[in-house]
Amino acid sequence: MYRVGIDVGGTNIAIGLVDEKLHITDRTNIKTAEVMGPEEMIQAIAKATLDLIKEAGMSASDIEAVGVGVPGTAEPDTGKILYANNLGFEDVAFLPGLKKALGDDLASKTNFDNDANAAAIGEYIAGGYKDQSFVMVTLGTGIGGGMIINGKVIRGCNNAAAEFGHMSINIDGCDCNCGRKGCFEDYASATALIQMAREAMAAPAGDLSLLWNKVSDASELDGEKFFEAVRENDELACKVLSKFSDYLAEGLTNLINILQPDVLVLSGGITRAADLFLDRVKEKVAGDVYSRTSSKNTNITVAHGIADAGDVGIIGAALIDKM
Amino acid sequence: MYRVGIDVGGTNIAIGLVDEKLHITDRTNIKTAEVMGPEEMIQAIAKATLDLIKEAGMSASDIEAVGVGVPGTAEPDTGKILYANNLGFEDVAFLPGLKKALGDDLASKTNFDNDANAAAIGEYIAGGYKDQSFVMVTLGTGIGGGMIINGKVIRGCNNAAAEFGHMSINIDGCDCNCGRKGCFEDYASATALIQMAREAMAAPAGDLSLLWNKVSDASELDGEKFFEAVRENDELACKVLSKFSDYLAEGLTNLINILQPDVLVLSGGITRAADLFLDRVKEKVAGDVYSRTSSKNTNITVAHGIADAGDVGIIGAALIDKM
Repeated sequence: MYRVGIDVGGTNIAIGLVDEKLHITDRTNIKTAEVMGPEEMIQAIAKATLDLIKEAGMSASDIEAVGVGVPGTAEPDTGKILYANNLGFEDVAFLPGLKKALGDDLASKTNFDNDANAAAIGEYIAGGYKDQSFVMVTLGTGIGGGMIINGKVIRGCNNAAAEFGHMSINIDGCDCNCGRKGCFEDYASATALIQMAREAMAAPAGDLSLLWNKVSDASELDGEKFFEAVRENDELACKVLSKFSDYLAEGLTNLINILQPDVLVLSGGITRAADLFLDRVKEKVAGDVYSRTSSKNTNITVAHGIADAGDVGIIGAALIDKM
Repeated sequence: MYRVGIDVGGTNIAIGLVDEKLHITDRTNIKTAEVMGPEEMIQAIAKATLDLIKEAGMSASDIEAVGVGVPGTAEPDTGKILYANNLGFEDVAFLPGLKKALGDDLASKTNFDNDANAAAIGEYIAGGYKDQSFVMVTLGTGIGGGMIINGKVIRGCNNAAAEFGHMSINIDGCDCNCGRKGCFEDYASATALIQMAREAMAAPAGDLSLLWNKVSDASELDGEKFFEAVRENDELACKVLSKFSDYLAEGLTNLINILQPDVLVLSGGITRAADLFLDRVKEKVAGDVYSRTSSKNTNITVAHGIADAGDVGIIGAALIDKM
């Protein structure tokens, strides 16, 4: 049997057929900009999905489940997208519309959730974390994630739990776009890391950094170039990464003191360079967590269940009905 | 049918018979100081429990369950107390010993958990929160609590989750006894409130405070006198309470951004004066939580399930098997 995963993003909708080994065998794309409103998007997704199944020589009876991961606040009970900033959607009856458009044979097998939960479900299942309490922390533009504890996703009363990035770790700190001060994501997201590096470059002490060999203006710095400089032992870049690691450890220690999951999985593009900072983070957390004398503590690791991080959205969505 | 609740504390062990309406009908006490080691404590608890049942004219067949709440890290699976600072216990096979001492008729009905979880279970059941996701935050010497989400207690991988007090909200803040800086309990526990008030009294601007009519030395100030001054509209006391409320709101906002429970219940002695600060806390949280535009948000309230806060330990323990 196969599954269909549909990953709805702000710029792209990726649809894939997923086999029992959790490999994507066939895939297709829709540019989000090419569809106008919710109804048009629903019709385009349904058509592309039905075409994908057909072109693979299959029919609805070969499909075990269809799952859709959407950005923003998804309400699994009603199938509504309550709010999705990236899509410009508010209070859209997305799942009912999609079920209708997919037809009776697929409707009863079709589920949806928000993309962060879908990604957590994907890693939880593909990573083999069954029966463990599981927290995924995704380091990207901001910090998001998902929690699966006692075998169930913790969704929150308004389906927007796990906003880990908006835990303040410094109530007298810098302004966050959420209106608070000192939020975790302002210190430990990928964006925060690059911002810190740019500021360090621009400061007088930054003049000698190897980072200046890679860009002519600090604003051109990206993650790849930054980690390159760390691998070249650039003092400034290493110093920034140490500071970032300590901030990351602070937020993770908070989460562990609250949730103490069996496993805390880090994900997001910058974890490709985790060999450069994970040890320091783990060491600081180990020294700081409240129950540090315990023989058993949270295992901090990097997402590994899905080989290509770009496939997490599709595979996670395809597995939504499993949780 | 009746239940037995056993609340093991650092100075006192309280044992009560609890009826189906969750009232304590009979009770007894053991001074913790009068028992020496774990084995002696187990024997004393078993004897007092059996006597209590007998004196009430009952037998083991009238007892539905016996529950024990213990301070420190309790491991429900094995019945071990891994560590209990207040009792001086480390790696004690408490539950197996107690089951043996209580005899075959009660052994299979006897359960244990740590006291914070027992208190959360007590409020969850007695407060009628069935099917809601529930977080209890206890404001005392420190800040502790418990979480019941998707119908299960979240215990953590080493049975010491919900250390809410050791979430840092100010990584550049004051030193905490846990070794970190700026922990929530250093700003928003009952201890922190009184400490802040004492410091404000001792500062030059504190000279005119009504607090000085109640004590001759700042160290004599306690919660009762402090809230008395707030009710008398003492400017200094009101200012301190506002600051405390804002700190409390910061930590609660963090917890809500992470967990978004249906209900967040505050407990602990100082919540008897919640009429003086709860509105301010709720207002600040409502303005700060990440998903503040949602139509549904976490309900922040005060523990109400068990009329006498002093009974929470016994009633909670008596209900441990229910979760």
